[in-house]
Amino acid sequence: MKIGIIGLGIIGGGYAKALIKYGYEIYGIDKNTDTIEYALKENLITKGYTDGSDIISNLDVIFVCLYPKDTVDFIRKNQNRFKKNSVISDVSGIKRYISNSLIYEKEDYEIVLSHPIAGSELSGIKNSNEAIFHNSNFVICPHKYSTEENMKLIEILAYQIGFGNVSYISDLEHDKILGYTSHLTHAIAMALVNSDPQESKTEMFIGDSYKDLTRIANINEDLWIELFEKNKDNLIKHIDNFINELDMIKLSLRNKDSDTLKSIMNKSSNQRCDIDG
Amino acid sequence: MKIGIIGLGIIGGGYAKALIKYGYEIYGIDKNTDTIEYALKENLITKGYTDGSDIISNLDVIFVCLYPKDTVDFIRKNQNRFKKNSVISDVSGIKRYISNSLIYEKEDYEIVLSHPIAGSELSGIKNSNEAIFHNSNFVICPHKYSTEENMKLIEILAYQIGFGNVSYISDLEHDKILGYTSHLTHAIAMALVNSDPQESKTEMFIGDSYKDLTRIANINEDLWIELFEKNKDNLIKHIDNFINELDMIKLSLRNKDSDTLKSIMNKSSNQRCDIDG
Repeated sequence: MKIGIIGLGIIGGGYAKALIKYGYEIYGIDKNTDTIEYALKENLITKGYTDGSDIISNLDVIFVCLYPKDTVDFIRKNQNRFKKNSVISDVSGIKRYISNSLIYEKEDYEIVLSHPIAGSELSGIKNSNEAIFHNSNFVICPHKYSTEENMKLIEILAYQIGFGNVSYISDLEHDKILGYTSHLTHAIAMALVNSDPQESKTEMFIGDSYKDLTRIANINEDLWIELFEKNKDNLIKHIDNFINELDMIKLSLRNKDSDTLKSIMNKSSNQRCDIDG
Repeated sequence: MKIGIIGLGIIGGGYAKALIKYGYEIYGIDKNTDTIEYALKENLITKGYTDGSDIISNLDVIFVCLYPKDTVDFIRKNQNRFKKNSVISDVSGIKRYISNSLIYEKEDYEIVLSHPIAGSELSGIKNSNEAIFHNSNFVICPHKYSTEENMKLIEILAYQIGFGNVSYISDLEHDKILGYTSHLTHAIAMALVNSDPQESKTEMFIGDSYKDLTRIANINEDLWIELFEKNKDNLIKHIDNFINELDMIKLSLRNKDSDTLKSIMNKSSNQRCDIDG
């Protein structure tokens, strides 16, 4: 099987590293010559291209590992080049936008939208590492032009890459849930860092909790502006619900209402206990 | 030197484990017989007591590793038992309350208020581990009855325990800063978990960022109710400032103002870059 990986960054580079071990031919396409050279030197890919127009028609599976808008542009631009019955997948953290942008006349290839819930505050192929996928969550959003057979193929590849769990949900559900688990968490981390009163040197007075809550405040702006803006309806709702919870904490403090404060703490403890790690 | 450790929990147990290696005689006092037996069996303490009334007058340094109110009660109750010139320190995450509660007539012993900025969502001596202090921050808040010499002694012991940095600030400043770096972070983690819409099984759609932001939502209620309530003036202010930052993110999304969103992301990235880990 010939697998194409478009964009050898933190995700694409990691996919290549994991999949080449299974004996697949891995074709890497990245506009950056240095990236291709590095990927070849490290044996992450079988062949590499800065422009993949010629090779695309030979590929059985293509993972488009680009930012959301670039992903749509790439698929639109190359829709007449894809091999008959080939499967095109993506890695975007938003799914309605991708799905709605690809309502084309049925072509000969299939689309299986997917989202590897893994990442890094670092970027680029040199920071890619298949370990970030180990036991992570992977989501497949069935598209108008997905078949059972091809979704199953992407699921198998996801487990081979190292993901621990593959779920199937609609693009609508995906954006609602990820708006909470991913986009809201990034907004919180940013707001926490930005509300630093900086009256003293903060670094001298932090523990692991502050580090853990702010690590993702070091954010890849170009990617996250797209994710926030293309999921803003959900994100704004989640921010509002979250602020309501904070207001309840404030109110219980103002009212000296220890019972309510205790039940808030109880609730969060019980829910967090159910999550590993 | 004879060092007493009152309360062999996650902090006291870890202190004992670290300090006994330096050849100090470590006297552990804990109301729980099992805890004392475990500490003796594991060689964390030289001697152990469930009631330490008799031994207290022999101790050169005492770390009171109890919850804030219990810390004050212990020091008040035993103030006539402490050895002349002995140094009494604590581990509380709030400092004005401890400081203001100990405005006694000058006695023969010294008070050096301190705060090891380290902890765990686990509790009890079996979960104690001196590794949690390694390279962590330690704060000393000079008290009316602290001397330079005795603060230096606690500083040396802190470095021996494994802390990487010792800072000196007033109790007022401490509560303001820790209200931000510690109490606000815990309030955020709780509110994040409690705002889970739970429309699907959240655990299948989370990555490391959600895990990192919510780990401390599994909270020791008895301790944290005290910390929140005794620092509520600062905590409420920090929550308000934090909500203002979230509102700016919301506003930039509503107004389709990518430039502002980008500058918010830029600011948090730059500030977070300055912090290790």
